[in-house]
Amino acid sequence: MSKILRYSIGNPIKTEAVVQKIPKEKGELPYFKYVQKMEVTKQTKDGKEQDSLVYKLNCEDKIYGLGENVRGINKRGWIYKSNCTDDPNHTETKSSLYGAHNFFVIDGKETFGVFLDYPGKLILDMGYQRMDELCITPEEWNLDLYILEGDSVLDIVKTFRQIIGRSYIPPKWAFGFGQSRWGYQNEEDIRTVVRGYRENGIPLDSVYLDIDYMEQFKDFTVDEKHFPNFPEFVEEMKQEHIHLVPIIDAGVKIEEGYEVYEEGIQNGFFCKEQDGKEFVGAVWPGKVHFPDVLNKRARKWFGKKYKYLLAQGIEGFWNDMNEPAIFYSEKKLEATLKKIKAMENKNMDMWEVFAFRDMVMGLSNHPEDYASFYHDMDGTIICHDKVHNLYGYGMTRAAGEAFEELEPEKRILIFSRSSYIGMHRYGGIWMGDNQSWWSHLLLNLKMLPSLNMCGFLYTGADLGGFGSNVTEDLLLRWMALGIFTPLMRNHAALGTREQECYQFTQTELFRKLIGIRYGMMPYIYSEYMKAALNHEMLFLPLAFVYPEDRHAKEIEDQLLMGESIMIAPVYTQNATGRYIYLPEPMKLVRMKSIEEIETEILEQGHYYIEIALDEVVFFIRPEKMVPYTESGQYMEEIQEKEIKLLHFVTGTAEYKLYQDNGYEKDYENPNHIKKLHVEN
Amino acid sequence: MSKILRYSIGNPIKTEAVVQKIPKEKGELPYFKYVQKMEVTKQTKDGKEQDSLVYKLNCEDKIYGLGENVRGINKRGWIYKSNCTDDPNHTETKSSLYGAHNFFVIDGKETFGVFLDYPGKLILDMGYQRMDELCITPEEWNLDLYILEGDSVLDIVKTFRQIIGRSYIPPKWAFGFGQSRWGYQNEEDIRTVVRGYRENGIPLDSVYLDIDYMEQFKDFTVDEKHFPNFPEFVEEMKQEHIHLVPIIDAGVKIEEGYEVYEEGIQNGFFCKEQDGKEFVGAVWPGKVHFPDVLNKRARKWFGKKYKYLLAQGIEGFWNDMNEPAIFYSEKKLEATLKKIKAMENKNMDMWEVFAFRDMVMGLSNHPEDYASFYHDMDGTIICHDKVHNLYGYGMTRAAGEAFEELEPEKRILIFSRSSYIGMHRYGGIWMGDNQSWWSHLLLNLKMLPSLNMCGFLYTGADLGGFGSNVTEDLLLRWMALGIFTPLMRNHAALGTREQECYQFTQTELFRKLIGIRYGMMPYIYSEYMKAALNHEMLFLPLAFVYPEDRHAKEIEDQLLMGESIMIAPVYTQNATGRYIYLPEPMKLVRMKSIEEIETEILEQGHYYIEIALDEVVFFIRPEKMVPYTESGQYMEEIQEKEIKLLHFVTGTAEYKLYQDNGYEKDYENPNHIKKLHVEN
Repeated sequence: MSKILRYSIGNPIKTEAVVQKIPKEKGELPYFKYVQKMEVTKQTKDGKEQDSLVYKLNCEDKIYGLGENVRGINKRGWIYKSNCTDDPNHTETKSSLYGAHNFFVIDGKETFGVFLDYPGKLILDMGYQRMDELCITPEEWNLDLYILEGDSVLDIVKTFRQIIGRSYIPPKWAFGFGQSRWGYQNEEDIRTVVRGYRENGIPLDSVYLDIDYMEQFKDFTVDEKHFPNFPEFVEEMKQEHIHLVPIIDAGVKIEEGYEVYEEGIQNGFFCKEQDGKEFVGAVWPGKVHFPDVLNKRARKWFGKKYKYLLAQGIEGFWNDMNEPAIFYSEKKLEATLKKIKAMENKNMDMWEVFAFRDMVMGLSNHPEDYASFYHDMDGTIICHDKVHNLYGYGMTRAAGEAFEELEPEKRILIFSRSSYIGMHRYGGIWMGDNQSWWSHLLLNLKMLPSLNMCGFLYTGADLGGFGSNVTEDLLLRWMALGIFTPLMRNHAALGTREQECYQFTQTELFRKLIGIRYGMMPYIYSEYMKAALNHEMLFLPLAFVYPEDRHAKEIEDQLLMGESIMIAPVYTQNATGRYIYLPEPMKLVRMKSIEEIETEILEQGHYYIEIALDEVVFFIRPEKMVPYTESGQYMEEIQEKEIKLLHFVTGTAEYKLYQDNGYEKDYENPNHIKKLHVEN
Repeated sequence: MSKILRYSIGNPIKTEAVVQKIPKEKGELPYFKYVQKMEVTKQTKDGKEQDSLVYKLNCEDKIYGLGENVRGINKRGWIYKSNCTDDPNHTETKSSLYGAHNFFVIDGKETFGVFLDYPGKLILDMGYQRMDELCITPEEWNLDLYILEGDSVLDIVKTFRQIIGRSYIPPKWAFGFGQSRWGYQNEEDIRTVVRGYRENGIPLDSVYLDIDYMEQFKDFTVDEKHFPNFPEFVEEMKQEHIHLVPIIDAGVKIEEGYEVYEEGIQNGFFCKEQDGKEFVGAVWPGKVHFPDVLNKRARKWFGKKYKYLLAQGIEGFWNDMNEPAIFYSEKKLEATLKKIKAMENKNMDMWEVFAFRDMVMGLSNHPEDYASFYHDMDGTIICHDKVHNLYGYGMTRAAGEAFEELEPEKRILIFSRSSYIGMHRYGGIWMGDNQSWWSHLLLNLKMLPSLNMCGFLYTGADLGGFGSNVTEDLLLRWMALGIFTPLMRNHAALGTREQECYQFTQTELFRKLIGIRYGMMPYIYSEYMKAALNHEMLFLPLAFVYPEDRHAKEIEDQLLMGESIMIAPVYTQNATGRYIYLPEPMKLVRMKSIEEIETEILEQGHYYIEIALDEVVFFIRPEKMVPYTESGQYMEEIQEKEIKLLHFVTGTAEYKLYQDNGYEKDYENPNHIKKLHVEN
């Protein structure tokens, strides 16, 4: 019995996160109390008082959700801030990553969901100040607060997913493995990558183009020096069964004669300062303007620009820097240099030097800059910092809406760095600029169900880590999780160790590992499609499926993936195995490759399971099955003609296999479902 | 059968790490091969070639040691750099922390120890570039390389500990709990802390004075405004059974009339540049000179300065900033400001702004600064960067040698941030400026045995974490490990959440937890003293004690502490228990307080053990016992008159209890050993 209550507080800004009409409640807000609290971001006790909504937590209560964030599946015990931020250092004491996903479910003495539809800064104290209090503190009390009730956590999540609309579905080739690196400069660099994979027999479907492919980092341009005939090169790659996936950044370079800039200026499509002049930020291209993607007309205009690349054969994109990141603003840099000049003949003391350093470091993503420009939200002029968390959503919506017009018959790949709930209808996200840390392998796993709760199904982390230097064993272990994530991409930053799979000594292991991904595609794709179409989660915490099992409810390093399997990757270096809890009897599947499979039936209970570097282990649930097929070097080779079955069926069971051509949009066509049966 | 081989390569600098005379070997170096390798610090393949010593690793080989460092007990799979560094961001991809501890043991197809007595930069690739190679690459080939062989890892470690000399022994009160915070400004702040503990009945023995107590951060001064009568205040605190422990920094403020500065200048005791002028760095006091603690006369002079505080009743110190940290140098700051000035009327592009930012950030701890000043090592002028890793050692040795003269009859507490093997004879270390990260709780545990291998027994981490904001549960869990570490101190940085135990809601839990520490003092102190006197480890990896147990050899989150117990703290948030492996039958001890104890005998095997936030769990080994006593509010209250016993003895067993007055130095007096017997 699910119930949705909407409490409209103050004057909320329309985000279009929710697509269903939910009437406003008039009664009192249940569960919460308004309390005057000391400012929760202050650590000492001299903060100012502010209004918070407080919920009293029971010792056993758990809190799930918050999408892309640090820490556990159970979010309890930390303070989070909804404030889309370009910060590549995802340590556990950060409060914000790239997205703002204000949906969570409290599960315990009372079980209910909360969605805070609020695009400004929001502080969520999940038992940080006091272990027994959850406090909600938005910067301003203008928001829609939804309370969701239901029979179970899963029921509440499904209800939420229904009201926010169907999740984005990518083309099927986007489930293939992709290689990326900031630093592929030209055609030859990309050919080298493709050759490296093909010659080693390691499957590959796409190569991502980071900012290097553009001419001076200008959106919707291609550097002709390094890509003299881009459409021809795109075609050459297609012959190799490789999709090129270019990046698009939020900022548009200020450059006379550059079409995108000129059009934006002429039509007033860029964000403006109070005096009506375009705001000047600086990102990769140097000085830029930001398209006002919260304005319908500007959004439509910006979306149409993707045509430039679609027309050259491109079928997928990633939207980046759309928090939006600001390396510095023109004004802030000027003011900083002026202040430094004033120091010139002064004998600076220690604290002045610190202030000087902080000032220079603080040039990036400065709150004053975010408060200094405005959006025209279809008539209403609104300061950016009040709608900050909608920017990435707006940009990706621009692309998504344009694709519907430009390519009505075809799925286009699109995923974003920054996001807000609602954006999940237009594209996926990747988990941002992570690091080659073992702890980020586990963080990757923990984010999956939290993101799924918020509608983001097409997602994955930069396998091997973006920043810092990877080790071969970390990459192998991370890929053993990555083979299950819809977006499976290896990506690394300029200046880090080269981390394409063929750069290491044990290429054979990578070949087999990725081969397992391709071989399991019948299951992976079916589960993705069914989750999207039925508003369900693809990755589930054990807590959601075994709510009566006290131990299962605490598990933070195992997940259910789809209806049939449980995954439990190794995430510590030098370990040759790990502890795994089976909440019910399961069949252990041990694969060295898609052809080398061993299975073993295990009873419910705790196990230490050996998992070598060259193995993938997962578990099949009772009366469930996993269709798989022969592997291939790229998605088109996976014909799925001969479907094999791994199963743990003792009676009779049915599996709904989803098969379509992978690029058309008639998702609901009943012919796409093929029923597989096992009878014993 | 232990064997020590010394290979003297080039022209090694005398570090006095080793105190035994070991003859030079003339034959060929065993185990290793010289190989021309690409520069290992380069990630791409365009590095220059350099000589490395390479050892071929077997798949099963493990590598233990390296003292204070990131990553596992098994150091395999990363690249480390011996280069004492003030970097508070101890993420897993760092290569250097504050110490340089170049001793490790390879355990596998061949088992042997290696000590690289080399005070310059040293790169240790422990299977990073290739998983099957260990490479040693010093900046210059001037070093003493020791190969140690023995019957077991423990045997090799003991041999090493013997040749480097007996570990430092602190006064017994230094095993009590201490509170610290950067930011206690004056007498009243400290009284508030003491009151907070005493009123809540939480045991406390010391309060640490961070840089705030000094007058303008000048070493060997006390700010008279905030501490108008320091000796009286020290005495007042002693009446409360509280020891004040002031910090001493490496840099000496440049200030005319300031005695330490004037004496240093007059006697030429500061490090100089090539032209003979004193090098000017800047740290907390602003511009400073660095005492040349590698020079015997200067060291003697600096050590004597501690008398200023000893004479006022102080009995313990911590030496900080002695990597030495340099916030900036006079020259580098000038050059930077000049460069910024040149930018003034230039329209900077993106890359120039990045370069500008990097330049400002790079002011701290700049390699050029370390290469620009010199030591006079008793006649030999040597550039700092060639002996960089000896500085903290020299500073702490200055103190240690002085204490022997100034207080020959009394133990003085001293521990340091930076260190090198050899310094362990003069003082302890704390694990530096860690963070309030759950991962640092585990890192704390992992560093303990590695540090013990290198001679550092008196050690511990800043409980709760120094940087970032702690949560109550993290502090509780961390303290549950901290009650076993010789140095047990809660310390936090300015601007972070107040983390004294009485700041939280569950003060009762902290009271009982620290009470367990005090109650177990008979065991903790006995084990420390025996480890120090017999050159043994206090904390041991299971691998060292159960070398035939394949599973035990991999365990990275349990330790043996002393001869009788195994510890296995909870280190993940929201967990109510954890997996624990018992390599042999053990008796589980569950304490809610030193008076509320439950036990249970468990067979060898894997367990999931529930451990609530209000519990300490540890395990007693077969035929072993743990003496304990009534708890108290401070160490003097622990009379150890009534010794109680926890034990898992089925036959007969003996335990050597070490009891002395805790401040005298007749460590070897046989009367200090009392034999306890259990017979069944």
